[in-house]
Amino acid sequence: MAVRLSDKDADFEARFQTLLSGKREVSEDVDQVVRAILEDVRERGDAAVLEYTVKFDRLDAASMAELKVSEAEIDAAMTQVPQSTIDALMLARDRIQSHHARQMPKDDRYTDPIGVELGSRWTAVEAVGLYVPGGLASYPSSVLMNAVPAKVAGVERIAMVVPSPDGALNPQVLAAARIAGVSEIYRIGGAQAVAALAYGTETIAAVSKIVGPGNAFVAAAKRRVFGTVGIDMIAGPSEVLVVADADNDPDWLAADLLAQAEHDAVAQSILITDSADLATAVEEAVERQLKTLPKAEIAGASWRDFGAVIVVEDLDGAMPLVNRIAAEHLELAVADPDAMLEKVRNAGAVFLGRYTPEAVGDYVGGSNHVLPTARSARFSSGLSVLDFVKRTSILKCNAENLRQIGPAAIALGKAEGLDGHARSVAIRLNL
Amino acid sequence: MAVRLSDKDADFEARFQTLLSGKREVSEDVDQVVRAILEDVRERGDAAVLEYTVKFDRLDAASMAELKVSEAEIDAAMTQVPQSTIDALMLARDRIQSHHARQMPKDDRYTDPIGVELGSRWTAVEAVGLYVPGGLASYPSSVLMNAVPAKVAGVERIAMVVPSPDGALNPQVLAAARIAGVSEIYRIGGAQAVAALAYGTETIAAVSKIVGPGNAFVAAAKRRVFGTVGIDMIAGPSEVLVVADADNDPDWLAADLLAQAEHDAVAQSILITDSADLATAVEEAVERQLKTLPKAEIAGASWRDFGAVIVVEDLDGAMPLVNRIAAEHLELAVADPDAMLEKVRNAGAVFLGRYTPEAVGDYVGGSNHVLPTARSARFSSGLSVLDFVKRTSILKCNAENLRQIGPAAIALGKAEGLDGHARSVAIRLNL
Repeated sequence: MAVRLSDKDADFEARFQTLLSGKREVSEDVDQVVRAILEDVRERGDAAVLEYTVKFDRLDAASMAELKVSEAEIDAAMTQVPQSTIDALMLARDRIQSHHARQMPKDDRYTDPIGVELGSRWTAVEAVGLYVPGGLASYPSSVLMNAVPAKVAGVERIAMVVPSPDGALNPQVLAAARIAGVSEIYRIGGAQAVAALAYGTETIAAVSKIVGPGNAFVAAAKRRVFGTVGIDMIAGPSEVLVVADADNDPDWLAADLLAQAEHDAVAQSILITDSADLATAVEEAVERQLKTLPKAEIAGASWRDFGAVIVVEDLDGAMPLVNRIAAEHLELAVADPDAMLEKVRNAGAVFLGRYTPEAVGDYVGGSNHVLPTARSARFSSGLSVLDFVKRTSILKCNAENLRQIGPAAIALGKAEGLDGHARSVAIRLNL
Repeated sequence: MAVRLSDKDADFEARFQTLLSGKREVSEDVDQVVRAILEDVRERGDAAVLEYTVKFDRLDAASMAELKVSEAEIDAAMTQVPQSTIDALMLARDRIQSHHARQMPKDDRYTDPIGVELGSRWTAVEAVGLYVPGGLASYPSSVLMNAVPAKVAGVERIAMVVPSPDGALNPQVLAAARIAGVSEIYRIGGAQAVAALAYGTETIAAVSKIVGPGNAFVAAAKRRVFGTVGIDMIAGPSEVLVVADADNDPDWLAADLLAQAEHDAVAQSILITDSADLATAVEEAVERQLKTLPKAEIAGASWRDFGAVIVVEDLDGAMPLVNRIAAEHLELAVADPDAMLEKVRNAGAVFLGRYTPEAVGDYVGGSNHVLPTARSARFSSGLSVLDFVKRTSILKCNAENLRQIGPAAIALGKAEGLDGHARSVAIRLNL
């Protein structure tokens, strides 16, 4: 059973603060192991990757070429996956594509009042590496959510890596890769795969950016190669915050809370409501639904250890709490969700109204499901086309406007003790 | 004297590759020290910061309040700085403001063909910490370049930290902070200042994002607090690439190469030209100008150790080299720079034509001077308003369109073994 808070309690602020600052993740200290693997792959390339793949995935390949997934293997995967799943993946792909196409930033070029030309020019990252976990968290939807925005951005090459422990590979993941337009797939994983993508090997050309979720080794490897390549955010455990008025079906809300909880025993589901009766009804519905949920063990643990029900005096007054939680997923199951949205400052994604369960956004809504976790919506955004493009700024002066603004540059260069800076302007103005 | 390469040489590719992969930075291993400082400040707050400030900056304050720079101190700084510098800073501020205002992303809200409402909503980060180095690299222009975009984005609170070893504080930096609209200034630095901003202390409220350059301790601290707060890129040594045709004044180009070189002995200046005569003339001009440059020792070391002159058959054919270098600053000193710009894929900022020395962009051009170094322009962009806002995605279904796309979400939830996801959709559709 989740913890219950009320904003009328004397100790509310302290308990809310505890909820906010509670650490849900145990960070394994794998940094030394990862450092050694990265260095080894950097030095020895394919040979090192092959060795680690035997060691960690019990997969013995004679060459990296053998670890590249062939077109025939992907063809086979497409036939193994039920047509209904293929159709759903294609619908998801199309909807993600349409939504993300609107995110493409526009170039800007203009002349300012004194005649200086300025601008911003956007270009796609040339090659992106996509990490896909093996085993339990090997989700085809994540392949789409990472690869489709890259394609929309214009990335020419998407190299996917996915570990196949003992040779097992999820055919759904291969199908999603085909549907998303991934260019190459290698059945490698862990820090060795991150190293291969970042530094390149004889077989795998280096990429410029690596995205996608992974375990502690992958996360540590991504942190370490950051700088050599770009990386996306380091994802923490998932979370949902449901804000609900009294006029909700408790079973719907319970289903939403459990959909989040079933991801991970350290996932977090929070309900904020102004109705103590609804709160109780939802708590009861959660217990009832847990009985028939296949992932009841995980979801039950998450709800028991990290779930919370917060009863507030009024929902509008609770918006500061919502913004402090800065949830990855925020459902506004209220009569006028758009009015409430105006007061939302920090959230990864908002799901408006009673007919928008968060799971729609996970799959087919069109928006991205890679979102900022652990309160990082205070300063970061979900994955988008912007993660696969970069901006070059443009400046163009002529003799006349350099004469106008150059003296200020000379003054500042000298003030900062950078006479060479000052000289590079002065020499053009015969100053 | 810089190294000279020619694309006609048999070993050109190998030498170019060496130039690209040459490490200019020695990374100090300060991680253990930094980790201890961060933990200490997190636990003991103000008291720990005060102790480290005595230890590292030899500044003994009775309380953190004493380390907060008062309005009277800033008033005094404004009178100490020459009016010409104040005027130049104000011109720079206004031009940075105008340019960055154009970067503000627009909210998007639309209804797709089947009636689902989608959108993106941008909001500013609420509080930003700005690190300003003490000593040599304490540049007022950097204060403007970091603070003004934050203000344009709508950041309500900008907390600046700047170490003042032995009490010394650059009045120009305080003046720039006033001109840029910084909210609070503390004379603290190092990992302890980063910790204070990230975790908060009794006196300093925690921020959501930390930007600004610093030494190895500051960079390591920023890497470690990343996740708790957002950070900007970790800046490496600065670099310029000048692409020049024969029709250039060698003295102008030499001045530009040295302006970059004077930053740091590990800065890098590269010239690419199709004229061997110009190459030689520039090399000679560099030697000549070094004789009268105040920072000749630094600039000379940079040019000798990391400078390069590359003579190519034709400039258009050299564009792939330009894109592989992915320079922080790229000058196109050619007859038709706009045509050449079309072929630039990777660069932090491009300076077009013969009258746009890079130093203009450092100060008064209006574009940002915080730019991706060390080839990271392949995957990242200069600082902009986008670094101070975050996007919340919006999804709104009604009963009817949930009925249309919901079944695909149910299919994918089940395919991924997430029955709770499927149920949260099915329960609303009575499926």
